[in-house]
Amino acid sequence: MQKINSPSFFIGKSGDGLISFGSGQPDMSPPKEIYKIQAKYRGFKYGLVQGQENLRVMLAKEYPCAKADNFVITNGASEAMDLALRALYRPGAKVALPRPYYYSYPHNVRLARMTPVYYDLVKGKIDLGNFAKVIKGCRAVVINSPSNPTGTVQELDVLKKIEKLAQKLKVYIISDEVYKDLIYVRRNYLMEGQNVLTLNSFSKTFNMCGFRVGYVYAREKWLIDKIVEIKTHTAMNTNILAQDMAYEAMKVPKSFVKKQCQVWLSRRDFIYEGLKKLGLDLWKPEGAFYVFPKMRNPNKVVNDLYYKYKVIVYDGTWFGSPNRVRFSYALDLPKIKEGLRRVGEYMKKEYKKN
Amino acid sequence: MQKINSPSFFIGKSGDGLISFGSGQPDMSPPKEIYKIQAKYRGFKYGLVQGQENLRVMLAKEYPCAKADNFVITNGASEAMDLALRALYRPGAKVALPRPYYYSYPHNVRLARMTPVYYDLVKGKIDLGNFAKVIKGCRAVVINSPSNPTGTVQELDVLKKIEKLAQKLKVYIISDEVYKDLIYVRRNYLMEGQNVLTLNSFSKTFNMCGFRVGYVYAREKWLIDKIVEIKTHTAMNTNILAQDMAYEAMKVPKSFVKKQCQVWLSRRDFIYEGLKKLGLDLWKPEGAFYVFPKMRNPNKVVNDLYYKYKVIVYDGTWFGSPNRVRFSYALDLPKIKEGLRRVGEYMKKEYKKN
Repeated sequence: MQKINSPSFFIGKSGDGLISFGSGQPDMSPPKEIYKIQAKYRGFKYGLVQGQENLRVMLAKEYPCAKADNFVITNGASEAMDLALRALYRPGAKVALPRPYYYSYPHNVRLARMTPVYYDLVKGKIDLGNFAKVIKGCRAVVINSPSNPTGTVQELDVLKKIEKLAQKLKVYIISDEVYKDLIYVRRNYLMEGQNVLTLNSFSKTFNMCGFRVGYVYAREKWLIDKIVEIKTHTAMNTNILAQDMAYEAMKVPKSFVKKQCQVWLSRRDFIYEGLKKLGLDLWKPEGAFYVFPKMRNPNKVVNDLYYKYKVIVYDGTWFGSPNRVRFSYALDLPKIKEGLRRVGEYMKKEYKKN
Repeated sequence: MQKINSPSFFIGKSGDGLISFGSGQPDMSPPKEIYKIQAKYRGFKYGLVQGQENLRVMLAKEYPCAKADNFVITNGASEAMDLALRALYRPGAKVALPRPYYYSYPHNVRLARMTPVYYDLVKGKIDLGNFAKVIKGCRAVVINSPSNPTGTVQELDVLKKIEKLAQKLKVYIISDEVYKDLIYVRRNYLMEGQNVLTLNSFSKTFNMCGFRVGYVYAREKWLIDKIVEIKTHTAMNTNILAQDMAYEAMKVPKSFVKKQCQVWLSRRDFIYEGLKKLGLDLWKPEGAFYVFPKMRNPNKVVNDLYYKYKVIVYDGTWFGSPNRVRFSYALDLPKIKEGLRRVGEYMKKEYKKN
């Protein structure tokens, strides 16, 4: 039996009675409209490296003050992060990350040959005093609200103070807002300022993970130019057909997103109550689709649950939090129910002795 | 009038009587079969970061000794190069490039935070003596045969000697063979050895540039693991639908590729003879779809031809060759003919005084 020590262990693991609270991938389908264009599609040539203009024009309408030229369409938010960091590269520079963090962040910073430093969240929330100390002298800071893995949303006044602070300290803000349409407590707050790079994607809002369409929205022209230049050498245009599909998705009535959010909300309530009943210490998620309860010895929990109970959960250690476990609730209610039953059984029989 | 000093100036420039010998993009269509699957396509979830298994199994059949696990499917050969270099990264390392080079190579090496050094080609061919000196102490060397921009194919015995030399000197070979199916003088020679990373793509063979499907084929397991790890953080899977389209392309009879090669050959002959008649000094291309004649003051030629004769050609300086001009012949014979007529007019009227 192989000891599980990274999320990649679970890739391709499914079926056979397995309940997965693992992957952060929506289970619901994209708008059916995105498939319609394909019947007539005959394109094949390179597209603009910056991304197709109709898509960028449409995006610009969603962001006050933005123009189509402020966007670069990318291979998902992952490439948007990679390009943003590479564009901001300076020898010896530091980049501040939240901790717990999305598991790719520290790798992204190192792959851009810079050094990650961390501001620790308190119950998933930013502590401004600590934050201010950590970002001083950094080239950039990553903000992730709503957050993966914590499910928390940062307070409005905190985000506004961060905007001012970062501007004063000349630190770029990389605001990863991929869960912007998945908030249960208020509307998303778009971080603003000349020094802000907003990352987003069609993966979570429209369930289009596999098509890899994301974008970076930057206010400074040199950043757009630099990002396009890098992408010209490292990837060229984002898949042309996927960009057309993303464009179709944006034309779908907003009710699509709203309805979906209601489904996420009911799942959130169900799993939150369920885990609380099992006696776990956790906060109520405010966005995204993760719960992040405290659990002792999380790696043992991950291995026990997988090998003995056919349940996938992720070790908080992979996200910089060695005393928690991440549950994604991107699965339907009956599965969540059955998963919780198994977790309960495990807790009764084995966890106590952990 | 803006002075033209990079290929990106020409992006989106077309129509209005313009003849473009600029972009390296096939004008012929992909096999129609790649569009058929789309009618029924309903996928949307993340795919394997390494790439879909059916596609990798199919690729492995094209390479003697290869297994599906030796491949990573990428966003075109551009991402394949980026990932290969980032996987090979060592602080302070040098990477040897041919000169003239594909214009992205030096950027690729610098973006991977290594240092490019150059082995100069002699009339487009590798000079082994110089080559051996340059690659000593390098982490990797890039071989590009057939070559963009020179259109040359390296000699078999030279390639075999390079395999041995690089192995002896412990230098990785990154063999960019994207024009492997576009050779007029012999079949492609696949560079082999434990230390070889082969890059390829569906863009040139199947005219699928805009869909961005390429791959890296590596023999050492740690390289595949490293590349998949990097791609997990910087892009995730390559577009799932494009991979299915690439799979369909591979099922098409080989006659598709052969017929296409005959078209390229007739264009090659036409433009080569045409430019020779104009008195230009050039070699006969052996592969790819570029001719690379000597021309004085190439930047003036590029600007004059574009602004006064509506003809796009690329400055050799952009490829490390400050006394040549690159003509792509990815356009039909009538257009090549008209383009040559205009170039002839320019040469008669203005070039002499250059």
